[in-house]
Amino acid sequence: MNVRTVGESNNRGATMRSYRLEKLGHLDGIVPREEPMPTPKPKPTDILVRVHAVSLNRRDALILHERYPLPSAPGVVPLSDGAGEVVAVGEEVTRFKVGDRVVGGYWPRWHDGRLKPEFLDQFGCTLDGMLTEYVLLDQQWAVHVPDHLSWEEAATLPCAGVTAWNSIVGGEPLRPGQTVLTLGTGSVSLFALQFAKMLGCRVISTTSSEIKAGKLKELGADHVINYVDTPEWGQAVRELTEGRGADLIVETNGPATIEQSVRAAALYGQIVLLAVSDPTGRHRSRIEISGEAYGSTLATIRRIFVGNRADHEAMNQAITAHHLRPVIDRVFGFADTHDAFTYYLDSKPFGKVIIRID
Amino acid sequence: MNVRTVGESNNRGATMRSYRLEKLGHLDGIVPREEPMPTPKPKPTDILVRVHAVSLNRRDALILHERYPLPSAPGVVPLSDGAGEVVAVGEEVTRFKVGDRVVGGYWPRWHDGRLKPEFLDQFGCTLDGMLTEYVLLDQQWAVHVPDHLSWEEAATLPCAGVTAWNSIVGGEPLRPGQTVLTLGTGSVSLFALQFAKMLGCRVISTTSSEIKAGKLKELGADHVINYVDTPEWGQAVRELTEGRGADLIVETNGPATIEQSVRAAALYGQIVLLAVSDPTGRHRSRIEISGEAYGSTLATIRRIFVGNRADHEAMNQAITAHHLRPVIDRVFGFADTHDAFTYYLDSKPFGKVIIRID
Amino acid sequence: MNVRTVGESNNRGATMRSYRLEKLGHLDGIVPREEPMPTPKPKPTDILVRVHAVSLNRRDALILHERYPLPSAPGVVPLSDGAGEVVAVGEEVTRFKVGDRVVGGYWPRWHDGRLKPEFLDQFGCTLDGMLTEYVLLDQQWAVHVPDHLSWEEAATLPCAGVTAWNSIVGGEPLRPGQTVLTLGTGSVSLFALQFAKMLGCRVISTTSSEIKAGKLKELGADHVINYVDTPEWGQAVRELTEGRGADLIVETNGPATIEQSVRAAALYGQIVLLAVSDPTGRHRSRIEISGEAYGSTLATIRRIFVGNRADHEAMNQAITAHHLRPVIDRVFGFADTHDAFTYYLDSKPFGKVIIRID
Amino acid sequence: MNVRTVGESNNRGATMRSYRLEKLGHLDGIVPREEPMPTPKPKPTDILVRVHAVSLNRRDALILHERYPLPSAPGVVPLSDGAGEVVAVGEEVTRFKVGDRVVGGYWPRWHDGRLKPEFLDQFGCTLDGMLTEYVLLDQQWAVHVPDHLSWEEAATLPCAGVTAWNSIVGGEPLRPGQTVLTLGTGSVSLFALQFAKMLGCRVISTTSSEIKAGKLKELGADHVINYVDTPEWGQAVRELTEGRGADLIVETNGPATIEQSVRAAALYGQIVLLAVSDPTGRHRSRIEISGEAYGSTLATIRRIFVGNRADHEAMNQAITAHHLRPVIDRVFGFADTHDAFTYYLDSKPFGKVIIRID
Repeated sequence: MNVRTVGESNNRGATMRSYRLEKLGHLDGIVPREEPMPTPKPKPTDILVRVHAVSLNRRDALILHERYPLPSAPGVVPLSDGAGEVVAVGEEVTRFKVGDRVVGGYWPRWHDGRLKPEFLDQFGCTLDGMLTEYVLLDQQWAVHVPDHLSWEEAATLPCAGVTAWNSIVGGEPLRPGQTVLTLGTGSVSLFALQFAKMLGCRVISTTSSEIKAGKLKELGADHVINYVDTPEWGQAVRELTEGRGADLIVETNGPATIEQSVRAAALYGQIVLLAVSDPTGRHRSRIEISGEAYGSTLATIRRIFVGNRADHEAMNQAITAHHLRPVIDRVFGFADTHDAFTYYLDSKPFGKVIIRID
Repeated sequence: MNVRTVGESNNRGATMRSYRLEKLGHLDGIVPREEPMPTPKPKPTDILVRVHAVSLNRRDALILHERYPLPSAPGVVPLSDGAGEVVAVGEEVTRFKVGDRVVGGYWPRWHDGRLKPEFLDQFGCTLDGMLTEYVLLDQQWAVHVPDHLSWEEAATLPCAGVTAWNSIVGGEPLRPGQTVLTLGTGSVSLFALQFAKMLGCRVISTTSSEIKAGKLKELGADHVINYVDTPEWGQAVRELTEGRGADLIVETNGPATIEQSVRAAALYGQIVLLAVSDPTGRHRSRIEISGEAYGSTLATIRRIFVGNRADHEAMNQAITAHHLRPVIDRVFGFADTHDAFTYYLDSKPFGKVIIRID
Repeated sequence: MNVRTVGESNNRGATMRSYRLEKLGHLDGIVPREEPMPTPKPKPTDILVRVHAVSLNRRDALILHERYPLPSAPGVVPLSDGAGEVVAVGEEVTRFKVGDRVVGGYWPRWHDGRLKPEFLDQFGCTLDGMLTEYVLLDQQWAVHVPDHLSWEEAATLPCAGVTAWNSIVGGEPLRPGQTVLTLGTGSVSLFALQFAKMLGCRVISTTSSEIKAGKLKELGADHVINYVDTPEWGQAVRELTEGRGADLIVETNGPATIEQSVRAAALYGQIVLLAVSDPTGRHRSRIEISGEAYGSTLATIRRIFVGNRADHEAMNQAITAHHLRPVIDRVFGFADTHDAFTYYLDSKPFGKVIIRID
Repeated sequence: MNVRTVGESNNRGATMRSYRLEKLGHLDGIVPREEPMPTPKPKPTDILVRVHAVSLNRRDALILHERYPLPSAPGVVPLSDGAGEVVAVGEEVTRFKVGDRVVGGYWPRWHDGRLKPEFLDQFGCTLDGMLTEYVLLDQQWAVHVPDHLSWEEAATLPCAGVTAWNSIVGGEPLRPGQTVLTLGTGSVSLFALQFAKMLGCRVISTTSSEIKAGKLKELGADHVINYVDTPEWGQAVRELTEGRGADLIVETNGPATIEQSVRAAALYGQIVLLAVSDPTGRHRSRIEISGEAYGSTLATIRRIFVGNRADHEAMNQAITAHHLRPVIDRVFGFADTHDAFTYYLDSKPFGKVIIRID
């Protein structure tokens, strides 16, 4: 990148690189474009952000394949999660100054309280997203980044971080010494593990890989169950908890695992159900729980759609206080965006897949 | 009834009439017996209760057919719900005096807080129940009856009343003006309707009968949907609520209706799931929710196992303040117990089926 | 009123009548002005409202006398609470259309979730208020008015209504049959009485006037205590509740009454403390509770700063469902604004004092 | 000690050593007695416990000086908190077996849910307490002790431990990264510090001693304020929290400190008020908060009366999971009981004062 001065006078004609989702259904539909810098005259409440890193989420694949509940805008810039530096601010901006480090909020219009129909915009879906060098954001749409995080680490937070945070702290409060169960090694599960340890809980995690089991223990998991060796892992969780079951289960898989999750749950357990359909097509896109398993528990099932800006800020406070470091599996270059998607979808990463935008 | 004086001296040899569940699987297994009065020397904390009325619940049919989660004691006296008068008290009894009107608690050992494994006894199942003239209860197992209720009305409370009460007040608080959905005209649904109106909520109810629709409206239902005419009643509920959906759904049917209930639920709705298997065998005994319906809501699903004594007492306070009258469909005589069961199971009553024990 | 057509073209030069708070400390500081209509070119998200009625609140007197926690803007238009009709909308307005009936939110910037420092603006204090014929509002600052309310009734809601609503529903949920205590006949107390009845609670109210006692009972109060005849009314509340005490107390007076309120509170009572200083100067501006009274209760004390827009909208839903009618004591004309203030402050009205702006 | 075999046959005539509170108002009223072993025929639900260690609490001094809300039984064995070994069990005992390590519950009759009038018994007050070699307890009155704790450590839990636990986890849930403020170095404050760290919170503590400041930091305090050097420590807490204030304050002093605590509280802070009178007589026994301080906060004030058995068990689960070690200041011998009291009352210990009963 070479031009890119920002400001009213001299960036006329300046260009930047972006990707745009020009055709749905196949990775080739995400195409690189050289395009004009965002509007040279930002609105008085806008900030201009130079994006340095973005991260991939399951929802990005769902949007690509038209399986996301919200329709995407034609030719939208993909990706919800991006971290960057504020390089210009409108004259009425009060929340940020040039040089601040920010991410975009997952639901930029949802600031506090409950989700409402008028808040349903998302970056990389109904709004241009973060797979670009520069993005214009209303100041209300951005959130500060904890100081100790790198750009790559910061880019992990908006979707997976906030989802995990609300999974752990958004329902009935967990007490120290209670047990949290996480499934697999997706980013939500890893964040949930880290947040649960922050709250003083025991964590049981599942994986099919001995190598990943070791990594889970390094992150703080007290027990790891191999779900291939132990297909009845619901029962295994009960045995690890003197018959009580897990007090909270971060149910990241849904159709494939809900029956075992219900079997793993404590009498008053909380199941946070984050997936109700199966993107792989290997399982029916429905939640099925046997009367036998469900009949013997008072476990509640609750759902989360990521969270609002206040949640994100509360998470930041915790991440800052604990110097938490998000788990990153691999970092790709901007030119290797297609490879990043392929790697993310095919190789069951342990933590986040990042694209660096230099 | 003729003998039955109570007291240490003169009831030696006195007898009473009871039914006992001597053979599982068929109504004929519930047999009348003439048997000795309960122990003439009650324990110091026992009360002796002359039962005047009992009521039937779905769980009584499940116990008869060995489909209840708890195993029943051999030859147990059936029925959990009975109301009667205290006719004798042990010397350490402080909660009651002779002449008090009481019912037995549904979970006699569960007084407050959360259900625990050591509280799992129930009348008419693991403990001798109420289908008898006299029953000995530890004073902690009984609950006072609101003054304005008849014996028949009082006998409706322990199972259906407390279940409905906890459905309405046991989760996230409802606000006046919010909408509650009840399904059908079973006793839990009718109590839930009455309690929801007490809290200032709107109530939408379903039924397949125009006559029952009229009765539901008399009880206070603001809208009644005929679920036969409108099989997509989930959508109908949304239309009746300007698209918002019901804030709380008392899901008394489970497998047969859960999909429509999820479709009827508000974005932050509460679904109180009271049945997870189907006693009729017409539906699979499992909870199935399509990804399509579940994916667009943050509705929570919670479960209830009736409730504890503190819940029962709180319900009594509300019933007393509002002079609420439980809905009774029909009253049978003690000798007609088999007819009462048959009527309860086969005729879709509107409200409670009672057996009077004169 | 005669000129005042609205629109870009023809209201140049149009004027309107307003009051402005030009000198603090005395009612004469509130002076009538003829001034230009609000900016003929509203911002794209603004609505122009023709105010028809306003209501007076204690905070308006505190602002006048420089005893309010927020400083008022010099020459500000007084009053937070005004109801009117939308007569023009900016091109980006989505929440309202011309003809809609609205009130301004008490905290126009606080929409949901928790109060934050950046939300601290208020009409009639830091922002021009409602004692005027026309006001320009950002569309986010206004709230719809329930259809069945008159302009006068609508003008009662933003401060007193929302405060009472949050007093009753904003803490631990009340159950039907529980007891609410309200103090005196100010508007917050009357709304609280009405909302508490909506929830199925018993209400005990206090007053020193037999005439007002009758009116309180007409509004639904179950018991009224004359606090002059019964200075130990805390004990009287206990006696009316079989020794239990009130489950929730709307403590509108603070320093003058808190000791009796604590004595009136149930073991797990909630005291909603709405005043911590005494505007009259008759009591020390501090909360004092004796160890004797406080030592025997687990009552909590919580505070409320009115509430946010989501609270207001939830209240509207309840008011609409129940066709609740706010209590209005007296209506003054726009020219009689000083008389309205004097009457409000000196005559202990029963309900709201309104100024009609024809 | 020499005799003391336990059992129906051979402990007839066996004696044990106890202290009894025979005269109120002065330490000399606590007198050592040689007395018969507890009833040789325990009730079927009783357990006999050989007490090994007891701890002192402020309430023990209040009882001695007739300043406790509950009246003490004449000649009662003092002290609520004692840990020991089960040496005999009645035939119906199911919760314990011989050899189990237990403490008595602070409110032995309060097992779960809310405190009720019928639960008001306490050891060392209305019931014989723990300053004795042997005590007979109903099995429902005792709680298991975490395995890793010594007798001395176990004896710290029933009063101070459970009080601190409920202070930290009993109200609105704390999130990791939020700030807890503790006052001084009494045992409740130290437990609260430890529990708050378990939950991932920052802790600010106060003390007047540099040596104790160092110990507080060793226990995990993030900041320590010297309240003598900084009498306006409320403001100091705000400065340490970027102006936000403390999210939860464990208010162990009450009259002496409440004004500063309110000034230290966050806008939505929680003040857990554990003392409302002043046992030293140096401060008025009342809670006084200035309108100036109280008017600018939405902080809630809640109270705690220790807690119930379920709270105690939840605390045990956390203590076990975290291998938490209670802080013990000094251990005295049984014969030095008067010295232990004097030391406890006069020397501002850092942690618990224990009496060992060998």
